[in-house]
Amino acid sequence: MSFPPEDRTQDLFLGGRLRLSQPRYGYRAATDPVLLAAACPARSGQSVLELGCGVGVASFCLGARVPGLRLHGLEVQSAYAELARDNAQATGIGLAVHEGDLRDMPPALRGSFDHVMANPPYFAPQDGTAARDPGRETALREDTPLSDWVLAARKRLHPGGWLTMIHLAERLPDLLRGMDGFGAVAVLPLAPRTGRMANRVIVRARKGARGPFRLLAPMVLHEGARHDGDHESYAPEARAILRDGAAVAAFG
Amino acid sequence: MSFPPEDRTQDLFLGGRLRLSQPRYGYRAATDPVLLAAACPARSGQSVLELGCGVGVASFCLGARVPGLRLHGLEVQSAYAELARDNAQATGIGLAVHEGDLRDMPPALRGSFDHVMANPPYFAPQDGTAARDPGRETALREDTPLSDWVLAARKRLHPGGWLTMIHLAERLPDLLRGMDGFGAVAVLPLAPRTGRMANRVIVRARKGARGPFRLLAPMVLHEGARHDGDHESYAPEARAILRDGAAVAAFG
Repeated sequence: MSFPPEDRTQDLFLGGRLRLSQPRYGYRAATDPVLLAAACPARSGQSVLELGCGVGVASFCLGARVPGLRLHGLEVQSAYAELARDNAQATGIGLAVHEGDLRDMPPALRGSFDHVMANPPYFAPQDGTAARDPGRETALREDTPLSDWVLAARKRLHPGGWLTMIHLAERLPDLLRGMDGFGAVAVLPLAPRTGRMANRVIVRARKGARGPFRLLAPMVLHEGARHDGDHESYAPEARAILRDGAAVAAFG
Repeated sequence: MSFPPEDRTQDLFLGGRLRLSQPRYGYRAATDPVLLAAACPARSGQSVLELGCGVGVASFCLGARVPGLRLHGLEVQSAYAELARDNAQATGIGLAVHEGDLRDMPPALRGSFDHVMANPPYFAPQDGTAARDPGRETALREDTPLSDWVLAARKRLHPGGWLTMIHLAERLPDLLRGMDGFGAVAVLPLAPRTGRMANRVIVRARKGARGPFRLLAPMVLHEGARHDGDHESYAPEARAILRDGAAVAAFG
């Protein structure tokens, strides 16, 4: 299966610096993979594996910010993997796209990496109604348990390598439960407005490290008390990340 | 062992509404048990068990805010239990103080309660140097694993009963790991200043409930960017709790 041209859209990320193809009706990236990429502490020359890369939004955002990375993406849906390959060609950012299941890693990915990042499906198997589009359903629905994502990441990381994940805030207990073998775990709550509870979390952890757990001050995405439909209301830090391609500073 | 009069101090809580005896050199309560009591959602007529009550600061603060509770405290150190009994007499707030270990609950406490609250020792067995005062050491050092505190709480709660705990933010993963059998878990980060990472968390959970996990907006304790030694700098919400005996509003 692949997406015919009429079922693709071209969308801009990082204030127009990136133009990426996405499925018109399937899973469409919004801000979460951009925030994920901004939180990954990769440095030039390092290797990065994105688990469940979809069309590659997080990997391309990371590649746009940090030159000279060796980027690899794993995607279970071949139509999305195909779009990711097209995006690599169109952007000139070298993402090696692998098709397969993270519980049965393709042989080409059985080495180890400096960084793993992931934006796993957000909804538990029993929650809500299925998306009508089957690819969107696969991208959104937690078919593979979250603990398997963390376990796959741990296996693929060098000692001292970093895991960076973004997920719903309500899944934080499940994320933390899977963190055996990681240390220096830090949680960055993402709140839509000042004083509102977090709806997302970015969790960063280091394989084999000993540092204490840290619960960071929230990053507030929007200014003002409510949504103003007439204009974009990103707070300065969020705007710098989403529009100017800045890194997340909060992890220190 | 008990504290002779010269080794006791009388300290004011809730803006002077409570005068409580504490050991001069042992474990001395600061703001944490006051915040714990303010987060416990007990209503008049309900029963409350405080695990590790010390001299009873949290229980007395709760009793001062909510009249008509049946308050029970469990304390492993008899000298602290004795002070808690003296405090019950002096304040007129009826706290029934029981001596014993939460892993081997005294028979009188083997019923079930509407609420359990706890401010367990903060430091893991291997961390740092021992306090010189052995009572302070027992109050600060995690001799009983944190998971045993949560397990003891679950056993003592009615179905639908509430657990409220305060602890170091860096112990949040351990707290959440123990929460099997609880739902509607909510975490309130306590941050010393705006934009600073949390140093404490209050965790509230309901036995047998199904509600999702919530990561609330932090409660910021102090105004301003740094400590001003010349005057008290509590933010309005913290001041209302610590000085005026208000409840924590954040849990909704």
